[in-house]
Amino acid sequence: MNKNEFEQFLHNQIPVTKAMEFSVKEFTKLKVEISAKLEPNKNHQSTAFGGSISCLMTVAGWALTFANIKEVDPNAHIVISKSNIKYLKPIKKDFTAECTLTNEDDKINFLKMYNENHKGKLSVKVYCYEDDILAAEFEGQYVAFNNN
Amino acid sequence: MNKNEFEQFLHNQIPVTKAMEFSVKEFTKLKVEISAKLEPNKNHQSTAFGGSISCLMTVAGWALTFANIKEVDPNAHIVISKSNIKYLKPIKKDFTAECTLTNEDDKINFLKMYNENHKGKLSVKVYCYEDDILAAEFEGQYVAFNNN
Repeated sequence: MNKNEFEQFLHNQIPVTKAMEFSVKEFTKLKVEISAKLEPNKNHQSTAFGGSISCLMTVAGWALTFANIKEVDPNAHIVISKSNIKYLKPIKKDFTAECTLTNEDDKINFLKMYNENHKGKLSVKVYCYEDDILAAEFEGQYVAFNNN
Repeated sequence: MNKNEFEQFLHNQIPVTKAMEFSVKEFTKLKVEISAKLEPNKNHQSTAFGGSISCLMTVAGWALTFANIKEVDPNAHIVISKSNIKYLKPIKKDFTAECTLTNEDDKINFLKMYNENHKGKLSVKVYCYEDDILAAEFEGQYVAFNNN
């Protein structure tokens, strides 16, 4: 699945991502980058609504987990189990979330757990930017599983 | 501002809340309850998308902070500074977030900080339910301020 196919998947299967005008810029096993337009995501101050920022970062972390598990098991389910966000700066323009798999050991452990138990956990960090300005930090734990 | 006026405010000023069909059930200084329809918030598994759950809970916490500061200073701004969520159960129907101000001391300290410094912090907990089943827990810290 390339970035365009993944964007279509998001827009078709998770309608909120279309309403929020999420656009997939990069979708690989090493990095996911997804951007959002300010206009549909603005609040009453004409800055980005915190809930929209949270949505974008949640999707970016999910997408990186998906990119890594789908080649191992196309039928794996992925859910988010917990997350935390720090909001650092108000966002006044379109914004972008980046999630990078920086620690190869995390991936190895994730896939090892999955292969042994049909269930694996992956913790990822996501950073949200307006241009080059870091506006929010997110940590999320995702669980991949297959009950069949 | 009653619950209907607050719902109109949300839908007009934060368009995502209209797209997600948020409906304000209760809006007082002691309790905020906001519900969401599953349909616009579903994911590819036809359960509630984690990002939508996060959005709803972020709004509920913001709303309780707003309800408490607006009588003190109608011109106060409120931003979320950090939050964390635990996702406990998949949600298969419409869902509701409840935020209650249980600790009177928290409110007193918040308003005291605000009156002294034109800036105050309030930490709140929000619980998300499908019927009576607790599906997600949220803690958020909100900052009210007035730079004028």
